This record gives sequence, structure tokens and C-alpha cells, in this order.
Amino acid sequence: MLIECIPNVSEGRRQDVIAALAEAIRRIPTVRLLDFSSDTSHNRSVFTFVGDAAGVEQAVLALFERAVADIDLRAHKGEHPRLGAVDVVPFVPIEGVTMAECVALAKKVAAAVAERFGVPVFLYEEASTNPARKNLEDIRRGEFEGLASKMAATEWKPDFGPSAPHPSAGASVIGARMPLIAYNINLATDRLDVAKKIAAAIRQSSGGFRFVKAAGFKLENRGIVQVSMNLTNFEKTPIFRVFETVKREAARYGVSILESEIVGLVPSAALAAAAEFYLQIEGFKSEQILENKLRQST
Amino acid sequence: MLIECIPNVSEGRRQDVIAALAEAIRRIPTVRLLDFSSDTSHNRSVFTFVGDAAGVEQAVLALFERAVADIDLRAHKGEHPRLGAVDVVPFVPIEGVTMAECVALAKKVAAAVAERFGVPVFLYEEASTNPARKNLEDIRRGEFEGLASKMAATEWKPDFGPSAPHPSAGASVIGARMPLIAYNINLATDRLDVAKKIAAAIRQSSGGFRFVKAAGFKLENRGIVQVSMNLTNFEKTPIFRVFETVKREAARYGVSILESEIVGLVPSAALAAAAEFYLQIEGFKSEQILENKLRQST
Repeated sequence: MLIECIPNVSEGRRQDVIAALAEAIRRIPTVRLLDFSSDTSHNRSVFTFVGDAAGVEQAVLALFERAVADIDLRAHKGEHPRLGAVDVVPFVPIEGVTMAECVALAKKVAAAVAERFGVPVFLYEEASTNPARKNLEDIRRGEFEGLASKMAATEWKPDFGPSAPHPSAGASVIGARMPLIAYNINLATDRLDVAKKIAAAIRQSSGGFRFVKAAGFKLENRGIVQVSMNLTNFEKTPIFRVFETVKREAARYGVSILESEIVGLVPSAALAAAAEFYLQIEGFKSEQILENKLRQST
Repeated sequence: MLIECIPNVSEGRRQDVIAALAEAIRRIPTVRLLDFSSDTSHNRSVFTFVGDAAGVEQAVLALFERAVADIDLRAHKGEHPRLGAVDVVPFVPIEGVTMAECVALAKKVAAAVAERFGVPVFLYEEASTNPARKNLEDIRRGEFEGLASKMAATEWKPDFGPSAPHPSAGASVIGARMPLIAYNINLATDRLDVAKKIAAAIRQSSGGFRFVKAAGFKLENRGIVQVSMNLTNFEKTPIFRVFETVKREAARYGVSILESEIVGLVPSAALAAAAEFYLQIEGFKSEQILENKLRQST
């Protein structure tokens, strides 16, 4: 069983604190820390680790213990919106585990965090128990500074823990979601309006695909524009369908696709689905991928 | 380091012998037997296992020991052409190992087989030392029954071992090759001539792609035809290029592609390459595939 966990922590400047947070995760033997990176202007660090349910739970609690001790949101400044010391903790099913099991884990960890550290927790995405509190952006609106007054309203009573923010650690957002794919398509034009119109056409918020977030940007140094996307469920809204739609919409303006790029990690199943689509492969099973077969027989 | 080895053994009927052959491989602790299957009409079994160079070498020698003891080619009948008890042994580079290292391993194992069992060995494919003895089909022509007279000619002196066949175990063909992809494209027509013309257009032997073997067949029960292929080097002759060429050639006869199928295993890199091609992904690295990242950090 393999679950990925990607906690976002509100500290991106003090190297000793960041190192101690990474060490807290590394110390759990059944978990592997794959990556961590910090952004000083965001004043935020992102840790990526994998393990089984028990290991991942232990690692998150160890991370909270350090973060609550070392981080004080009252003294925290950064460009990135945030609610708490450990701001967001998503659990992502990778292998041999269902989304339902990741949701159950999110709730178990949320209860433990509330009890052990007195930090209120909001459940989000697949773990959400309230349609108005599914999106991270909605939960985080107002940030740490607006949290006390926001939580005074009954509709912002947290899922676990006290009805007021922790004085220094704020609140945390914990949940489960599919792997997220950061995917950009660069257009062979400098017309920003075309990128913005295409982004609007494909993103959920304005009538597009259910699991697409998108915006249009200018890449100033290259004299071209980009449709920048997050694909939040590659099984239900696959890359190839988004790509083909962008291509068709761009053609309507006489614009062609220059290239696309995947930023960071992508599950092999997302690439295999594109190969299956374009090569019209029937009856393909993921066990036919040599690497999957190798891992299964370990 | 991961090397795949797929020995083909001339026994597909006696279950006790086949089980003993599988057990000989399984007993090597640094090797994993992924799969084995037997065909009674071919009277032949195919074993697939992976491991490091030392483990794979041990397993092949253990397999030879059993096969030479249990199989007598003088009493062997089957539809599939064969030269020896252990007929063919390819080594395939999978991860953290070069083709040159697999060639070196093939030669080392070939020398050990000749010395320990007195079986003559011909090197083939990437391990071949002679352009006329690169293709398995050329080496195997005449089969076990014609081997003694074939080996009487100096050009068929083996690479290792005696200049005459082993009385009961014949000769073996050992070498190194890229992973082979068995790939079929079904056409929305019952015209066998179209499948045959397309197969001729794309296969190396009649002027097509360097690493494609192809033939046209009728799928009688479905009333359609198939271009059946082996892709012997998916890096140099990628699936998507073959697919697009078949599509274009079929269109010339007013025929479209119904579907394609991958038979058995396929390396994830072959599917990723198709996704990169069709989605026009620039700057993609294999470490971006989540599963690869996971294995690297093990």
C-alpha cells in the first residue's frame, strides 16, 4: 500500500527549522521522504513523502509536533495565502489503496491533530463533509489574520478541534485528493487574449472540464503565451482530452500549439492513457506495463 | 541493476519437468521469476525472470543443468522450430544497466554453458560477432535435425564450445537484445491484401523501418484483417511512428484503423514516448514519472 502525502508548512526561510521538519519525517522508518523545497518569498515549504497508512499518519503527527513548537503565525509574513503552521495536508492514493481509505486516514489524522495539539482542522476535497468547504481556496479565504472572526460563524465551525484558532499555529486543512498534474500548453502566438479565452473555455469554474483549473499567462521572455493548468483528476478529465480541446479552441483563432510541458511528477497511468487514446489501444491492462509487473512481484 | 532474461526451453508437455525448471530459477534468491508459460503444440516453455547480472547468470546455469539432464531433443517433437534443449536465452537491459553490459553477460554465460555442459553456443542479436549470425531465424534454420551437417561447415563453427551438437541437448543461442513489443493493428476491412501490403511497407526486410517485423493476417472470426508486428527496438523505431505510418498507408486504400493491441508486457518508456509525441511535451524526463521516482528512492 502506497499513500503520498504533501504537507505545506508556513516556514520557508529559517533553514534550521526546515531541516528539523524534514528530519521529523525521515525519522519514521516506514516512510520515504521523496522531496522537499522551500520558497523564501512565499515563506513556505512543501514536503513530499510516501508510505503506508500507519507510517504516513506517524510522519504527519511528528511534523505537526515540530511545526507547532517552532512556527508562530503571528510573526509570519509571506506572499502565499495560509491559515496555519501546517497549512495543508493532502493524502493521495498511489497504489494498492482506495480514495475511500485515504479519506478515512485524513479524518483519523485530523482527529489526532485536534486532540494532541489543540489545532482546529477543516476537512477538504474528497474528505470534505460540506460542499461549501470542499475547495481549499474557500477555506483559506481571509487567511490566518481573518481566521478568528471567520470561525465565529457557525458555518465555519471546524470538523475537529476547538471553535477558535490555535493562538500561534492557526488552523489546518487536511483531506484527500487525486494526484495533481501541473500541465502547461504554450501557444505559437503572443496574443494573451487567446490564452485567456482558451483557459476560460476549459476550466470548470467557467463551464469547462470538471477537473481543470486554468489561467492564461504571457511568457514575456519568449514572446508567447501559455495556458497554465492544474489537472486535479487525470482519470476523469484525462490530459489528452484537455490537449485536444485546447488545440481545437486555438485553431478557431488561427493559432497552433507550440509545445506542452508537465511540471513535476506525473503518474505513469496518465501517460499510458494518452498512449492508449492516440494509438487506439484496446483491452490494455496496467499490469502489462513492465515496471508495474516488476513492482507487483517484489 | 535490473536485467530481464527470457529463456525458451524445448519442453511444453511434461508438467513435472517444467515445474522443476521453474524451481531451478526460483531457488536463486537474487532473481525473481515473473512468469512462465508452456505451449503443448509448440512443446516449448518460456520463462521470464529479472535480477542483477550475477543472479541472472546463476539462474541460467541452474536452468541449463536441469534442462540438459531432463530433455532429449532426439525424442522431441513440436511445431516451433528449435535447435536445443535450452533453445534461446536473451538478456534484456531494463534499468541501471547498458546494452554493452548485457552483451558482456551473454558472452560470459555462453562460455560457462559451453564449458560446464559441453553445449555449443551461438551468440545472436546485439551479442553477435558475425553479421550472418545476428538473426535467430538464420541460426535456427535446419533445426536440431539438420544441426550436425550445418555445423560441419566452418561458417557455422559456434562462438563457444564443441564444433558438433551435444547429442541430446543440441546447441543454444544466447545473446542480448532490447525489450520486444508485440504490437498488432486491426484494420476496419476484410481485405487481406491491404494488411499484407501495409506489413510489407513497414517491415525492415522489405524496405520499412529498421526495427519492425510484420505480417498481414486475417482474423476469420471477426471478419477483419490485422497487421501483426514485433517492434524490436522501441527507442529507435517508436510505436507512434509505426502507428501513424500504418494509418497513412491504410488511408491510401480507403481503410481506417479499427484498434490496436499490445500483447504482453511493454516498458513504460514506450508509452511515455507516445504521450510525449502526441501531446507535444517538451523537456520531459523519465524521473518525472511518479513510479520511477518511487523506485529510485527505494
